[in-house]
Amino acid sequence: MLTYQEALSVILENTKILGKEKVFLNDALNRVLAEDIVADRDNPPADNSGMDGFAVRYEDIVGASQTNPAVLKIFGESKAGDIPPVLEKGYAIPIYTGALIPQGADTVIQKEFTKVEDGKVYIYKELKKGSNIRPKAGDYKKGDVLIKSGKTLRPPEIGILSSVNKPTVYVYQKPRVAIITTGDEILDLAEPITKESQIRTSNTYSLYAQVLQVGAYPTVIGFAKDNPEDIREKLKYAKNFDIVLTTGGVSVGEYDLVKDFVKEVLNVNIHFWKVAIKPGKPLVFGTWGEDNSKLFFGIPGNPVASMVVFEVFVKPALSKMMGYEKIHSLTVDAILTQDFSRKSADRLEFIRVNVEYKNGNFYATPFGKQGSNILTGMVNANGLGIVEVGVESLKKDDKIRVVLFDTEFLYG
Amino acid sequence: MLTYQEALSVILENTKILGKEKVFLNDALNRVLAEDIVADRDNPPADNSGMDGFAVRYEDIVGASQTNPAVLKIFGESKAGDIPPVLEKGYAIPIYTGALIPQGADTVIQKEFTKVEDGKVYIYKELKKGSNIRPKAGDYKKGDVLIKSGKTLRPPEIGILSSVNKPTVYVYQKPRVAIITTGDEILDLAEPITKESQIRTSNTYSLYAQVLQVGAYPTVIGFAKDNPEDIREKLKYAKNFDIVLTTGGVSVGEYDLVKDFVKEVLNVNIHFWKVAIKPGKPLVFGTWGEDNSKLFFGIPGNPVASMVVFEVFVKPALSKMMGYEKIHSLTVDAILTQDFSRKSADRLEFIRVNVEYKNGNFYATPFGKQGSNILTGMVNANGLGIVEVGVESLKKDDKIRVVLFDTEFLYG
Repeated sequence: MLTYQEALSVILENTKILGKEKVFLNDALNRVLAEDIVADRDNPPADNSGMDGFAVRYEDIVGASQTNPAVLKIFGESKAGDIPPVLEKGYAIPIYTGALIPQGADTVIQKEFTKVEDGKVYIYKELKKGSNIRPKAGDYKKGDVLIKSGKTLRPPEIGILSSVNKPTVYVYQKPRVAIITTGDEILDLAEPITKESQIRTSNTYSLYAQVLQVGAYPTVIGFAKDNPEDIREKLKYAKNFDIVLTTGGVSVGEYDLVKDFVKEVLNVNIHFWKVAIKPGKPLVFGTWGEDNSKLFFGIPGNPVASMVVFEVFVKPALSKMMGYEKIHSLTVDAILTQDFSRKSADRLEFIRVNVEYKNGNFYATPFGKQGSNILTGMVNANGLGIVEVGVESLKKDDKIRVVLFDTEFLYG
Repeated sequence: MLTYQEALSVILENTKILGKEKVFLNDALNRVLAEDIVADRDNPPADNSGMDGFAVRYEDIVGASQTNPAVLKIFGESKAGDIPPVLEKGYAIPIYTGALIPQGADTVIQKEFTKVEDGKVYIYKELKKGSNIRPKAGDYKKGDVLIKSGKTLRPPEIGILSSVNKPTVYVYQKPRVAIITTGDEILDLAEPITKESQIRTSNTYSLYAQVLQVGAYPTVIGFAKDNPEDIREKLKYAKNFDIVLTTGGVSVGEYDLVKDFVKEVLNVNIHFWKVAIKPGKPLVFGTWGEDNSKLFFGIPGNPVASMVVFEVFVKPALSKMMGYEKIHSLTVDAILTQDFSRKSADRLEFIRVNVEYKNGNFYATPFGKQGSNILTGMVNANGLGIVEVGVESLKKDDKIRVVLFDTEFLYG
């Protein structure tokens, strides 16, 4: 049986980045840039003022002080967006932040060092030549690469794209993910319960939400009962997708159901079945389609196993397809707040924990109920503590590696 | 002039949580729950098997061992979703994970401790009575509150909502945010540049992206030139919104433009103008509308100031309106990697830094260019280091508080 790391390697080696597409800027947030962004002009495009005040010639203010102010005649104005008049010797031009430096001026005196009276400005301080002038191209030059391909587009990058006149931009495509729920006993929302053995789905929509959260496009294909015709039909509907996720139908005795039909209908090449992890052991992974560039994940039906498998295997694959450099959730070393023990140490176990950050340390508290069917144990969990193969017990204050699937606790 | 903390307090005291609305489950991710979620039935709804194997009577397997197996006749089957037959003494019923425990059975033997031959199953191990049975209501009981109002809906909570048959759910509303860009010199995307003094907007769309990222609804009302008719018109278009953001028109000499018109058109009650921070000093904040429940932010035109002001003032207000408990970005104590000094220490300064997390510590590296017009300095930044009032310089290895506006660096 593959280890966690071996399984992850097989998946990522078989995962290819998708093609590019053009999106409008208002749809570009959190997408991965697929072109270099080049400056279309110098920035600032011309020398401009960093302050509200007066544009002057330095020679006219040399020696100015509180007791011996320079006195200059006020002339014209330079407002943002205007072309100002030329500055002659003995004059000062009122100027605003961002406005062009008038020809002839070489220094800007901020308002607080001046007084205006009778059409004249009194300047009470000598500033260095060039003060308060933001020079042409001081930020960047036309032709400079401002953002490199591969960068995740956050608000600052969106601002830069706008400033260089890019209403549309190349980004990497998002995969389309088909979700097929199997199992005779699983009901969709609002379907009437007729037998106490029936279970209302949770995985269908928790997987939908997990796909959304990564930034890909989820589609619920539907609920396939455990009969050949229904499974064939639902798999056919998934043929045009980049990734197919099935939930259920992979544990001992069920495995053949999913395996045989994905081979028959989608021509899936199965890379592995079973990983030495808990929960999530019966995971199936395969590739299909042209160049085997499409992925298949047969996800176990237990609700917690489903979430864990998505978090540690499917999410990194989706993130890689979309061009992200950082494809794994934040993993930290935390201090265990209580003892933990288990009966069998033959698999790597992901235990649900609640992580807190106090005085520069992460603390992890495991939950009592760790069954893979216990969904409510996830409500207060924000991390998956990793108990390695061969480790039967951990003590309070031991270190434990934790995959954080929710970082809200870090916010104030 | 108000301090950073005073200004933030004024804003948050004047910010009210919005009303509730019903959304479909596929739109509920990352929204804040506005009702308690109650279990509609026990979970599991009945005793069921935690393993693939055989349902047996404990009394029939007492003393079973490798050398002395218990031998039981195989009868019927219990699959997930089926109602199994009654188990008689001396028989074993094949059972699958999740399937109902047959009446008469009290223990499940997993497949690996058995061998099947000639319609009989050989059981090589005595398990404890009740082994591998997941008891009815072991996760929760009908009527239990599973998720409390106020919780942010992540994939686990979406899964639980589905499992208790909630296709729609009450969440807190998202504010609608109007963005109005002012300034004669500011051009929209694709508008031809006719003077070198003209600037292509960055704030319009970086603010749009920031509003989107918080989870609210941004709308670009348009670009108002600095003339009364245009400003009045654009403000009128914003009357139905919950929040109005203007960009530009608030620094000395421009302030009256925005202030007078928002008073006239929207009847805004101005709470403050100017905060002792850098960048972002000329921020204006006001309330308006019925019960003064709507907000107005006059955001400075400098691109970096605009982003900083949004991050530290507007974002917490929007988050509070949407019902989030955690409304501030993650703030950490980081170790400064180089010296920092400044000329004037009369304001709290937010310096752009790049933060890394190594060996359990956060390290902050400030950028060389810190001008509030230098947008490219934001591309490699992920945090805002806080230099307090009165602090003129910091040394390498000093601690600095950092507001993290991007946590991607924490991912693997």
